[in-house]
Amino acid sequence: MTNQKYRKTDNPEIKKPQGEQHMATAVKKKNAFYAQSGGVTAVINASACGVIETARKHKDKIGKVFAGRNGIIGALAEDLIDTSKESARAIAALRQTPSGAFGSCRYKMKSLEANKREYDRLIEVFAAHNIGYFFYNGGGDSADTCLKVSQLSRATGYPIQAIHIPKTVDNDLPITDNCPGFGSVAKYIAISTREASFDVASMCATSTKVFVLEVMGRHAGWIAAAGGMAASEDCDLPIIILFPEVPFNQAKFLREVKAKVKQYGYVSIVVSEGVADKKGKFLADQGLKDAFGHAQLGGVAPVIANLVRDKLGYKYHWAVADYLQRAARHIASKSDVEQAYALGKAGVELALAGKNSVMPTVVRTSNKPYRWKIGEAKLSRVANVEKMMPKRYISKDGFGITKSCRDYLAPLMQGEDYPTYGKDGMPEYVQLKNVSVKKKLKGFRVK
Amino acid sequence: MTNQKYRKTDNPEIKKPQGEQHMATAVKKKNAFYAQSGGVTAVINASACGVIETARKHKDKIGKVFAGRNGIIGALAEDLIDTSKESARAIAALRQTPSGAFGSCRYKMKSLEANKREYDRLIEVFAAHNIGYFFYNGGGDSADTCLKVSQLSRATGYPIQAIHIPKTVDNDLPITDNCPGFGSVAKYIAISTREASFDVASMCATSTKVFVLEVMGRHAGWIAAAGGMAASEDCDLPIIILFPEVPFNQAKFLREVKAKVKQYGYVSIVVSEGVADKKGKFLADQGLKDAFGHAQLGGVAPVIANLVRDKLGYKYHWAVADYLQRAARHIASKSDVEQAYALGKAGVELALAGKNSVMPTVVRTSNKPYRWKIGEAKLSRVANVEKMMPKRYISKDGFGITKSCRDYLAPLMQGEDYPTYGKDGMPEYVQLKNVSVKKKLKGFRVK
Repeated sequence: MTNQKYRKTDNPEIKKPQGEQHMATAVKKKNAFYAQSGGVTAVINASACGVIETARKHKDKIGKVFAGRNGIIGALAEDLIDTSKESARAIAALRQTPSGAFGSCRYKMKSLEANKREYDRLIEVFAAHNIGYFFYNGGGDSADTCLKVSQLSRATGYPIQAIHIPKTVDNDLPITDNCPGFGSVAKYIAISTREASFDVASMCATSTKVFVLEVMGRHAGWIAAAGGMAASEDCDLPIIILFPEVPFNQAKFLREVKAKVKQYGYVSIVVSEGVADKKGKFLADQGLKDAFGHAQLGGVAPVIANLVRDKLGYKYHWAVADYLQRAARHIASKSDVEQAYALGKAGVELALAGKNSVMPTVVRTSNKPYRWKIGEAKLSRVANVEKMMPKRYISKDGFGITKSCRDYLAPLMQGEDYPTYGKDGMPEYVQLKNVSVKKKLKGFRVK
Repeated sequence: MTNQKYRKTDNPEIKKPQGEQHMATAVKKKNAFYAQSGGVTAVINASACGVIETARKHKDKIGKVFAGRNGIIGALAEDLIDTSKESARAIAALRQTPSGAFGSCRYKMKSLEANKREYDRLIEVFAAHNIGYFFYNGGGDSADTCLKVSQLSRATGYPIQAIHIPKTVDNDLPITDNCPGFGSVAKYIAISTREASFDVASMCATSTKVFVLEVMGRHAGWIAAAGGMAASEDCDLPIIILFPEVPFNQAKFLREVKAKVKQYGYVSIVVSEGVADKKGKFLADQGLKDAFGHAQLGGVAPVIANLVRDKLGYKYHWAVADYLQRAARHIASKSDVEQAYALGKAGVELALAGKNSVMPTVVRTSNKPYRWKIGEAKLSRVANVEKMMPKRYISKDGFGITKSCRDYLAPLMQGEDYPTYGKDGMPEYVQLKNVSVKKKLKGFRVK
């Protein structure tokens, strides 16, 4: 990998040696690249909003913000979106719009050694569009890509500052207290579990006695744990949680279901898609894998429901929340929206402070009242590290959450941040124009 | 069936002849019975709130409101709840609490001729507790039960006024413009479909292209139709609806999916649990039946998703909303909450006006702006009549909704009526004390 590539572009500013006097301004005022990666969330667009609004406030230092259409693929394919074509109002509306407004992708770049072609291409595209800032908004896999991009600067001599903005409903990034996207899923799952439990309680005398809700979470039970928040000191409800961290024990589980139904007349079961037996086999394994090589799961709720009916004879209902849980901007947590925005904003501020290869984090400074501030982590400490749920968050019987877990979760679910609604009773989510930046380079095949 | 039964109770007021002077007040001031029936909703408790608050304002005419624990079964088993033991605050909180606070049931009474034993028992319990008003809050089957109870007055000579308060997420009661519970489900499904569609749109370049959401609705596609509201003039989204009214045509459906994915890159499919082929066989039929003899369904979403993958090769996600949709008080429609309350209130007012065998209805007087008033329907015209969705509400291709349908649905979804939230970010739903009324009669076996 050389730094020759970017000198070959048709961008006259870049072709000339950096020492020349008339280049000073152009070199200083670089454009920014922003992209969304992996599964989207209810608040990733709030981070986008934070990035773009903050960049717009620093027009002396940051030129345009170009967004990658469909994440990093947009950079490789030189498929850039000119966010300067969007009105201030449209950008502000991103704060209340779920999903990834510029498109996301599931695409993990290999190491520099293994995939020189793609990194060369990134530099070529960055150079062609005078991009000096790389903001990558994603989870663990994206942090790894971001780390690799941050290393391009040293490896190629092309000046690029890579900042990772955390996002993941799985809440599994290290160092940061929590990940934007998670608080809103937690709120949604906790509320849905409470609501469905009230429903089953009404019906159990003559009908449904067991309700099963399947939630996301392949390896870490953060989202399932949120189901435990459905019950509280003021709201006594029988909830059984099946965590991916706890090997499924059928006999013990059925005893617990029977005991709860005996005591309350009904029970709600929150089951993580990643629940596995002691041999590690997913209860819902269908043998499919996604682009990252993760097993593709789904449908553990009916497995659990059928088990309960076959062994205990209870009438059941089951639900699979799937995308509804991570897209539920209508009941997003206010803490979550604020942090998502703040982390986007902080990403730009870190870039302006000359940082590279870092990720802004949430630092919790107080639980009651909840207070937090923005911190900073080195990407080398973030990439490819999966934060598991502490064992002390799971109750001794393996079916519930502890007080420490509640103390951790409650602040993340605090507050409501309602979108505006139209006359038809529907939330006003924005669809951007997403105007393409004119291409300057030859095509590139993204494999 | 005779009117002797109720004279046998230990209630001294009832044992005495009606002509006696000191009985005048007691005879005039009857207690009320209120019960919830069938599947519960996000707003049936708002109707309960309307009944109880209104009754409390007329203490000169209505004594206590006794609620049936688990619906009509509570009347048969003399398992009554004394709602006068609940504070004004707790009763007010019912307005923002989903589910049936007193328990509901799936229990349909047979005709007077076929089941004299149960009707005799009802009169016995009413008489024992000086109940003169019967408020039954339910759907079509409950309207039928309510009609039968209303006929007891004539058949037995025991004075009882039976008023049916409409409730059903299925929106299938006749005469009334709509049914409380439906507007909130419609809002939930429309919002969820919009949110999930935004999500899929973000992911479709490299991942999921088809999202399938299964919604309730055995025979009528009202709820599925609400999925069509996800898209609007201001929000272009590809939505395919599979109605129970339209026989499933696999080839035509797959062509439509392919066309949408070609045009938009993705598609959302809202499928009613009751979708059937042209022979009338449910796509999700598992051969189970509920207490009313209805086929018990579930799991049509994975059937559709697998079909799409097998025939077209698209990556999919699917969700089953199940109880979440009808319990979603957190995003209830304001119109719906107001109407649920108003119908409960109107039920009591009809009773005070001396009516029997009627149901208060919603009458739409204007669409823009939306205006409605309370009307009145004879129960004989309501019971066992299922209102189907008009054909003109379904688009010609059978996969969408028409402008008339949108004009009908939008007002029902209008406005938000948010519950209050606690410090833990959770909605404050009330759990009543549900203190039992002391039994006065011998036990009765409910079959």
